[in-house]
Amino acid sequence: MPSISQRGQQMPASPIRKLVPLANEAKARGIKVYHLNIGQPDIPTPQVGLDALRQIDRSTLEYSPSEGLLSLRSKLKDYYNRFHIDVDVDDIIVTTGGSEAVLFAFMATLDPGDEIIVPEPAYANYMAFAISAGAKIVTVPSTIETGFALPPVEKFEELITPRTKGILICNPNNPTGYLYTQREMNQLRDIVKRHDLFLYSDEVYREFCYTGAPYISAFHLAGIEEQVVLIDSVSKRYSECGIRVGAIITKHKELKRNIMKFCQARLSPPLLGQIVAEASIDAPEDYMLMTYNEYVERRKFLIDGINRIPGCYSPIPMGAFYTVVSLPVDDADRFCQWCLSDFSHEGETVFMAPASGFYTTPGLGRNEVRMAYVLAKEELARALTVLRHALEAYPGRTIP
Amino acid sequence: MPSISQRGQQMPASPIRKLVPLANEAKARGIKVYHLNIGQPDIPTPQVGLDALRQIDRSTLEYSPSEGLLSLRSKLKDYYNRFHIDVDVDDIIVTTGGSEAVLFAFMATLDPGDEIIVPEPAYANYMAFAISAGAKIVTVPSTIETGFALPPVEKFEELITPRTKGILICNPNNPTGYLYTQREMNQLRDIVKRHDLFLYSDEVYREFCYTGAPYISAFHLAGIEEQVVLIDSVSKRYSECGIRVGAIITKHKELKRNIMKFCQARLSPPLLGQIVAEASIDAPEDYMLMTYNEYVERRKFLIDGINRIPGCYSPIPMGAFYTVVSLPVDDADRFCQWCLSDFSHEGETVFMAPASGFYTTPGLGRNEVRMAYVLAKEELARALTVLRHALEAYPGRTIP
Repeated sequence: MPSISQRGQQMPASPIRKLVPLANEAKARGIKVYHLNIGQPDIPTPQVGLDALRQIDRSTLEYSPSEGLLSLRSKLKDYYNRFHIDVDVDDIIVTTGGSEAVLFAFMATLDPGDEIIVPEPAYANYMAFAISAGAKIVTVPSTIETGFALPPVEKFEELITPRTKGILICNPNNPTGYLYTQREMNQLRDIVKRHDLFLYSDEVYREFCYTGAPYISAFHLAGIEEQVVLIDSVSKRYSECGIRVGAIITKHKELKRNIMKFCQARLSPPLLGQIVAEASIDAPEDYMLMTYNEYVERRKFLIDGINRIPGCYSPIPMGAFYTVVSLPVDDADRFCQWCLSDFSHEGETVFMAPASGFYTTPGLGRNEVRMAYVLAKEELARALTVLRHALEAYPGRTIP
Repeated sequence: MPSISQRGQQMPASPIRKLVPLANEAKARGIKVYHLNIGQPDIPTPQVGLDALRQIDRSTLEYSPSEGLLSLRSKLKDYYNRFHIDVDVDDIIVTTGGSEAVLFAFMATLDPGDEIIVPEPAYANYMAFAISAGAKIVTVPSTIETGFALPPVEKFEELITPRTKGILICNPNNPTGYLYTQREMNQLRDIVKRHDLFLYSDEVYREFCYTGAPYISAFHLAGIEEQVVLIDSVSKRYSECGIRVGAIITKHKELKRNIMKFCQARLSPPLLGQIVAEASIDAPEDYMLMTYNEYVERRKFLIDGINRIPGCYSPIPMGAFYTVVSLPVDDADRFCQWCLSDFSHEGETVFMAPASGFYTTPGLGRNEVRMAYVLAKEELARALTVLRHALEAYPGRTIP
């Protein structure tokens, strides 16, 4: 039988994925499982988006242009401009979700052996896309003690080699919820300027900043406009993860042309998703505010609840809808697994994402999990109760 | 400014794409352009597919499973079984169009430096996906004189090296319309068996076989079931190219797991497209027959018309909706460009795809173009008239 690729074998097998069968078995045993593990919001898609679907008046569902529908790109331009992101329609290329935006950004800038530096913990799929491109992700650890602030710039500089092509950040951050400060963003600007690097900035959670601290886009940084590769997606903003619409925004002309070659090879991003996305940009302020307030409340509720459980600690996430929590356990991988396979409280259990999947440095995040607050408050309350009991019953707990 | 990837620079710039601005300029001058260059059918999408869209009753457009909706995969299984393709639901992985199916097939089987052998002319984007995977496409020329039949097996064997991982065919073929015979398929089976290779088989045009000759799927070949990687798409079958739904079908367990890692990294294929695709599989026989008859008629009309123009020759395509035509011109790239930039007949011109984009061997297909018969007969008639006049007026014609 012919053999599969080594590339595929290197692809990280997510520790979350490994737990999915256990969660399914738990459900099959009649246990209710609270999903704190995933970023699939329960918020409804904007009605204008759903209405646009029903009103589609096309007899042939044709390819859209490879760069996306012009009408969507125009609306995205206006949307970005509202955030003082000064881009033109021509700078915006529509992709099949933020996922394809990351893949194409890597494919168009990185050759096999090239390196990018990423603060860890980081979104696990960046690694997968880097492997797809044959490139190497080098990580700089951030720590729960500092609330996952940007590591000192010297740590980045130490890792820069002739193969380093860029720095990747996610802001607000998945999985930590951290929001980079103006000072940190200026530091990043200075490094990428000094070393002539790309700054890949995944800003899909920009609508979700909770502390009054400003959202600083990479495009707000003066003097590196052509070095910024912005990754975006409508998935989380409008709770429409399934439509697969994202974007790459760049002012680097040669890079744009290069990305377009990958876009042309796959012909077209999804037409129907683009129609929904375009309409969703017109979601009324009410909708955005309702969504925002809901997350504000859930966040407060979850973080307060966690920090009241003995031995648990979560920094206060400033954005997105995740937080990384340290637990009084020997091994969070084992604990998360045990919760699904060996534990239940009043017929219920919790599914959390072991943080090990977000680190590449072995051993880091060993007692940490990522929790997403994409469930209603009542469900979060139950999940917290279950977690407290689980920690009391878990044989590998590290506090008396 | 940081530099783009070499990979990107290697990506082929399609000769069709280069002509698009010229076509737009011609239109801006008020010239009607007949598009024989693209595979975007004008046939309507099945009504059941469009209806399914309007009936979507979901308040949140969530991620679908990474492998695709189970209900769609079940329907696809039944669909394949009708063609005596003996696959299970578990063998079917839904992708974002046939494009992603090819990309993931390559990513999951090929490492940088690996090679696959492809008869040329071939669908140009195979090359782009191979470059994305760092792999090399090695071509075996087929010729218009033999109607683009499978080149002799010895030609394949001569090219096999320790890095060869597979053979790729498209059947029925884009761009030639050729349909491989049982004898040819058996020859391919024997080679892949003997050398332990994958047989990648792109069979997206299976519904469009016109001569009564049987469609032989790679999965019909006994003894290589685990070596076959079938590429599929609903785009052309149901004239819904924009929904971006395809599939990879394989019985190779390790490969399946490997492909799934790439699927998980991009989270989910498009939900809305999957809903339309699933409904479209139930398109009434009438619809399929209407579509089929339409292409039968257009094919006859176009091929007869071409072969009546002095110096033009098209073999009779047995399937798909393309044909490769030799023209009495010095250089088809130049001729296609000239048609758009320098010529019009009664305010009309034609846009054809230079065949050079489908060959990798330099110089091959120099006087050939690909034509798609995705236009109504009346339009094809006009296009043929325009072509005849263009050939008479073209300064680089090679017949008196």
